[in-house]
Formats: sequence, structure tokens, C-alpha cells
Amino acid sequence: MSHPTLQDQDAYLYEQAADRIATLIDRGTLRPGERVPSVRKLSTQLRISISTVLQAYFLLEDRGFIEARPQSGFYVKLRPRDLPPEPKPSNPSLSATEVGVAELLAKVFEAARNPDFIPLATAIPGPDLLPTKPLNRLMAWVARHRGEQGVNYDFPPGNEALRRQVARRSLDWGCSLSPDDIVTTCGTMEALNLCLRAVAKPGDTIAIESPTFYGILQASLGMRALEIPTHPRDGIDLNALEQAIKKNKVKACLLIPNFNNPLGCCMPDNNKKQLVEMLGRREIPLIEDDIYGDIYFGAARPKTAKAFDKEGLVLLCSSFSKTIAPGYRVGWTAPGRFKPQVEHLKSMNTIATATLPQMAVARFLESGGYDRHLRKLRKALATQVQRVTLAVRQYFPEGTRITRPTGGFVLWVELPKSVDSLELYRKALEKKISIAPGPIFSAKQKYQNFIRLSCGQAWSDSLEQALKTLGRLAGKP
Amino acid sequence: MSHPTLQDQDAYLYEQAADRIATLIDRGTLRPGERVPSVRKLSTQLRISISTVLQAYFLLEDRGFIEARPQSGFYVKLRPRDLPPEPKPSNPSLSATEVGVAELLAKVFEAARNPDFIPLATAIPGPDLLPTKPLNRLMAWVARHRGEQGVNYDFPPGNEALRRQVARRSLDWGCSLSPDDIVTTCGTMEALNLCLRAVAKPGDTIAIESPTFYGILQASLGMRALEIPTHPRDGIDLNALEQAIKKNKVKACLLIPNFNNPLGCCMPDNNKKQLVEMLGRREIPLIEDDIYGDIYFGAARPKTAKAFDKEGLVLLCSSFSKTIAPGYRVGWTAPGRFKPQVEHLKSMNTIATATLPQMAVARFLESGGYDRHLRKLRKALATQVQRVTLAVRQYFPEGTRITRPTGGFVLWVELPKSVDSLELYRKALEKKISIAPGPIFSAKQKYQNFIRLSCGQAWSDSLEQALKTLGRLAGKP
Repeated sequence: MSHPTLQDQDAYLYEQAADRIATLIDRGTLRPGERVPSVRKLSTQLRISISTVLQAYFLLEDRGFIEARPQSGFYVKLRPRDLPPEPKPSNPSLSATEVGVAELLAKVFEAARNPDFIPLATAIPGPDLLPTKPLNRLMAWVARHRGEQGVNYDFPPGNEALRRQVARRSLDWGCSLSPDDIVTTCGTMEALNLCLRAVAKPGDTIAIESPTFYGILQASLGMRALEIPTHPRDGIDLNALEQAIKKNKVKACLLIPNFNNPLGCCMPDNNKKQLVEMLGRREIPLIEDDIYGDIYFGAARPKTAKAFDKEGLVLLCSSFSKTIAPGYRVGWTAPGRFKPQVEHLKSMNTIATATLPQMAVARFLESGGYDRHLRKLRKALATQVQRVTLAVRQYFPEGTRITRPTGGFVLWVELPKSVDSLELYRKALEKKISIAPGPIFSAKQKYQNFIRLSCGQAWSDSLEQALKTLGRLAGKP
Repeated sequence: MSHPTLQDQDAYLYEQAADRIATLIDRGTLRPGERVPSVRKLSTQLRISISTVLQAYFLLEDRGFIEARPQSGFYVKLRPRDLPPEPKPSNPSLSATEVGVAELLAKVFEAARNPDFIPLATAIPGPDLLPTKPLNRLMAWVARHRGEQGVNYDFPPGNEALRRQVARRSLDWGCSLSPDDIVTTCGTMEALNLCLRAVAKPGDTIAIESPTFYGILQASLGMRALEIPTHPRDGIDLNALEQAIKKNKVKACLLIPNFNNPLGCCMPDNNKKQLVEMLGRREIPLIEDDIYGDIYFGAARPKTAKAFDKEGLVLLCSSFSKTIAPGYRVGWTAPGRFKPQVEHLKSMNTIATATLPQMAVARFLESGGYDRHLRKLRKALATQVQRVTLAVRQYFPEGTRITRPTGGFVLWVELPKSVDSLELYRKALEKKISIAPGPIFSAKQKYQNFIRLSCGQAWSDSLEQALKTLGRLAGKP
């Protein structure tokens, strides 16, 4: 055996350093989503060179322990073996259904609003994640200095400054919208309502993902939902959709291609392109809900299906409710060739969107505050999703499956077949925990043994306790 | 002939004083709606005693020249002989119609939004009539000091402070609502939408006044409008309504009992009572739009039909859009027994009403600012309605008829049969004047020779000029 060379010694040093970090991760001292010590800090702590630390971190990255995030450092990665398996792609029966679980949905959300409850049901970011102070300062400013404009109607298409800001951002998601392409709305919910009514009538069939948050179809719009099998990672099954369209008279599609609620799946860009082309050939409008699009955990924002739309058949809808201020009720739609109808329906639904909230949001976007905020928000939500995932693994019964969302902040949890999620939901309410039971995500009330967990709240002991309780109620011994 | 006694001399003096004032009125120096000189001032000016001035004013009041307004003095009255005649009660054909003048309506309101136009089309109070500064100060305050609440959803039924304030005011209109009876909305328009959807389905028949602003039925709700003859002073013809209900399956009524738009008529309280009883016997819901209720010109606020509702069948809707801030988009409904459905539909239409605007309006009501403002607003609008009425008399062709609204701020003008109001509307647009042509107030596009004039703008030379131009376009030589 030869004496180790200098290079070997270095190798030894970086492997040693990597092992130490790996141990910290294995023991849970460093948790998935947390940042590992900075290169400089570890170099000081272990008295090794910067380049040795970097080698150690690259090794850990290769081994799947950590991941690099641009301009931000290395983070503990959630490894597949840490996780329960994923749910299988959905397989709904392929016939359209009249939508009607209104009462259940109403009850679920009533309970979810009780401030004494641990809120795992509603997909709302916790108060510490919202840019409350800077945004409200802008609101106070516009109220004081742009008050005359503020008390008056900002008729459809809505606030010009806001539309300009949204149009500028559209490059991020592969579009090049102009302010004139956009109509502002009272949140995404109104946008979806207007778009649905612009392209379909009561009784018409709308293809949707399964599972999905299809509450909108209930809005006494009287439309029929056709549930299409959907993969928990790649989104809607395009073959199944094409078959369904051939068999049924589908008037429109209503999809959440980026970070579907509740699956968290994100359609690959190529799938989006195929989807838009397939629907375009048949002149079927696609209503695209992109409300979670800005909350991606990866390196780049996913494109929208709208990016591939040449026919004006994609009606893109989004808002600022999941990112900065649900209570401002500011959303928008770029409804393509249906803009005149959408604009008119907007006049007849709420006349206009509240003026001052639109002005405040426009200024927040213009100032760069929104981008700075999004960077923090994405990191925080990615971490919270990982935390809840790990807790489910730890506290839920054998046989539980869970999604791997790459954005958004909801988890779709498949419990053992024996668990009735409605019963679990009721038992959880007794313990002051609100969850969203699976059947509200299906027009046919499938998903009896699924629940959706929102990860909007910052991690806390009481949240961990609530997940432990849920696991026990679901049958964990 | 005897020498006049002292009493006779006084009589002579007060008659002389009265004649002088009457002359000022006849010559148009004092215009209808304007205040006559105060008692003290006239006493000084004419060097007569206070009691003589009072006698003079009482004489003028008897003769119909002026009217006393409590705590405010004497005002020049609009006398019947000053006015063109009123339109006759409407007589629509009694069969239900599918609603569809969407394009025309859209065009009319698009033109109305052009800031370069004289805005006689949209029923919006002018900027000088809104309490812009105090209200926006409250908005800035809540944004700064109640910001955490402000960025979050205020889920249906909506802001509690606002509901409490509205409930307190309900005594004014003959109700005694509790905060729990109320659901807040994005303006009256959303309230009407939700209530219509709560009680009727697409294809159902809704009885409405004729003419009326029925835009709401168009909102692709797909409902059928049954137009009922309506008297320009007393509102809907109850006999005609009863006959129509016997012949047709009427699913609900949608009425504006107080200061109907465009007629300005106000149903006598006894008619409201009969209406509610008649509909109650048949279990037909009444959606009551009371958006103009606070803008009465008389001594007391008219009651709502809801005041007579014992069955929970009246769905009362209103907002603050005509009185303080259209752009805040704050309205509400007290939907009686349909509250659960309305609340659910609200969740599915816009999720919630913007939080901060609701909080600011609640504070404005709580502070007493709203009542102080309403007193000023009512006087100003009463004056503006009189001004426009006189201008129509002066500048419009022989044969023109005009309504005598006792509240609100719109006038319904019947032009000679030869005038086509759509043509007039187009010609007026060329002169940068926007008006609302009659056919948009009828599902059957009746009222071809009618226009609605909004009196929301303060009197000005350019407004007078615009009315002169309109009269000329309508055929005044």
C-alpha cells in the first residue's frame, strides 16, 4: 500500500466532510428542505478548504442527499426512499355527471373558516407568508393619493396599470400578451365563471381532470363534468382525453396544467403543446387555471398551455390570491377570442373589479416587490410541503400513498382502502382539525379514501400534533 | 274707500314681497330647486319685519311657488305647469321573452365610459357628489391598522362590522334585520345575480317592471323576462301582475319598488304590502333591488317591500355604489329563506368580497359620515333632476313627455313618436354626448322613442349645451 498522495488526502477529506453532513441528514438534524451550512461556514467549521467543501457538496448532490438552488446554496433533498409511494393515475368512469355535492362542499369550507381549527383544508398561505405590510402600505398610498380614481368604477377590461404589469410578466410563462388581451376579475374564481359562461351553456359537458377542484362547475352553472384520468406527476392523460372527446360532445376543457389542485402535478411543456393542438383541431376551448403557476419549486417557471395557443382558443385565468392577498380579490383572464363575451359577462356579473385593490397590486408588481416576495414564498412553501410529507410518512398508517408536488402547496393523500375519508373528516373536526375529504374533488364523489392536505401554514408543534392525530384517526396503531 | 288699516298695510307688504319673489322665479333668476333668500336676509333687504317675510313665504308656498324643507329653509318648487306631461303607464305585451340585446347594451356602456363624452347615459353620481376624501382616509387607515385582516378572505356571509351597520340601518326602511340575515357582495349587481340563481334556473320566467334596467337577466343566466305594465308614479300594476302570474308560470319577480330605473317611480307602501302578500300566497320569491332607496327627495325614506315580508320570500339587494363609491364594489343582500343558497353561490362566484373596502365602508357608516353625506347628496340630486327636467322642457320638441321622479337621479323621456331613439343615440355620440336609448330597457326592445337621462352630473354650461343639442337632434326647431 502506498502512502496516500496529496490528492488522495484531499479526497479523504471531502468524503469525510460529506459523510458528516449525510449523518446530520440521516439523523434528522438537517431536515429535507433546510439549507445545509454555507460553503464558507463549513470550511471554517471543519478547517478545510473551500474547494474541498464544494467537492463534498457535489458528492452529496450526486448521492441524492442535497440539491443546489441557484443563487441560494445547497438544500437537503427529499429522497424517494424517505417517502410513502405515490398514488396511481386516476381512472374515473368515462361518462359525464351532473355536478352536485354542494352541501358537502359548503360544510367543509364552513368548518375550514373556524379560526380555532388547525387549517389543513383550505389552500391559503399562512399570514406569515403574505407581504402584508408592504402591500397595505401601497393600498394606503393609492387611497390617499389616487382617491378620485379609487372611488370610481374601473370598467371592464379593468385597471390599465394592472393589465400592463400582467402582460409584462406573461413572458415568464411563454406568452407575449398585451394589456388589451386581459380582463381583470374578482379573483380566479370569477375569471373561471366568466370563461365557462362565455364558451358553454347549462347542460353542456366540460372535460376536467380527475381529481380536481371542480367547485366552479357547481356554481349553479348547470354544466356536466366529464372526469378524465390524470397522472399524479404529468397531469391529464392525453389519450384518454382524446378518446373521451371522440365519444362525447365536449364543449370545453377546464384544466389546471400547472400544479393541479389537489394532485400538484405539472404537465410537461410538450404535453401542453399536444393538448392545445388536439383541442385546436376540434375548435374546443381550453380554460386554463394557472393560479399556482408562480409557485414552482424547480429552477424555472413552467409555461402555460396558453403559450402554445395560436387560435385564441385558450382562456388563461389566474390571480394574486395564492401569492399575496386573498382578501384583495384581484384576478384576471386572457380569454383569447372570447374576450368580448367575457368582458360583457363581467359587466353583468359584478360590473367591475374593486378599483383600489387593483391599483395597489399593480404598484406592488411594478416596484419589483412581487418578485422578491415570490422568491421567499416559493422556498417557504417547498419546505412546508416537504415537512408535511415527512410527517405523513411518520404518522400515517402503512399503505398510505402521497403525491410529489413540484409546485403549489397541497398534498393528495391516498389512505388504505379501509379508511372512509368522510368519516375521517368528521372525526378530525371533533379534534378541531379541518381537512378536505376526497369526494369533493370528484363529480362522481370518488376518492372515498383520499384526503387533501394544505401546506400553507408554517410548521409548528400544533401542526405536527394535528398530523399525528390525523394519522391515528386514520388507523395508525 | 277707507284708508288701509295697519293690518291691511302689512297684508299689502307681504303680498308685495311675495310678488317680487314670484317674479324672480318666473324670470328664472331663482330656479327650481334653489333656495330662496333666508327670512332674515329678505327682512333686511326689503326692510320688512321677519313675520311679514314669513307671511310672504307662506303665501308663496300656498300658491305652489316654493316649498319648505325642514331645518333648511324655503326652496323654489317645480310646478306642474312648468313641466312637459308625464309618459303614460307602460303596456308591454304579456308573453315572456328570451333576453338578448347584449351587443347594444355593451356598445352603449362602452361609449358611456369615454371620459371625453358628456355622460348622460350612466347612472353614476358625479365625482363632486361622492365623499371621496373622508372615505379614502378611512381606507388608508384600515389598510395601515387592520392590514392582517385586510389581506385575508372575509368569507361569506362577509364582513361582520359591515353587516352590523347595514342591519342597524334597516330600521330606516321598515325592517329589523340582524347581521346574520345579510350576505355582502361585490355591489348590487352580484347580489341580484346570486339571488336570481338561488330562486330560478335557466329557462325560468321572471316577472319584471316595464321599462326596467333588466341587464341582469342577460348575464347569460338564460332566464326569460315577463314585462309587466308599470305606472310612471306608482310602479308596477298589481292587477296586471296578478293576471300575468295566473297565466304564466312565474318563478320569481325582480323589481325596483323604490325609484325604479328608468321610471323613478316609487310604489306606495300599501302597494308593497299587497305585492308581498299576493306573491306570498303563491310562494313566489321577490327579488327587491333597493339601490336607490336612500336617495329620496321627500321627507322620509320609503319602506322596502321586505318590510312586509313574513315568509322570508323577499330577497332584498342594495349597495353603496350610487351613494358613496361605485369603485369600492361593496353591496349586500338580505335573502330571507334563501340565505344558505345565496351564501354558497357567493362562494362559487367570487369566493368573497374584497375585505378592505368592506371595512372602510363599515367605518364610514359607523362614524355617522354616511348620514351627513346622504343629506347633502339628496339635496344636490333633487336639484339636478329639476334642472335637467326644466332644460328638457325648454330645449326638447313639442310632444315630449317626462317622468317626475321622487328619488334616484334618472329621467325617462318620451319623445315624439317620429323620433327613433337608437338613431338619436348614434347622432348624439357623434356630438360626444352619451345617452341610454329606450330599447335597452325592454326585453322586447320596445320604447323606440324613449331615452333615459342620468342627472348624476353637476349642472354646467356644457351640460346645458348638450341638452340643447340633444333637443335639436330630436327635432326641436
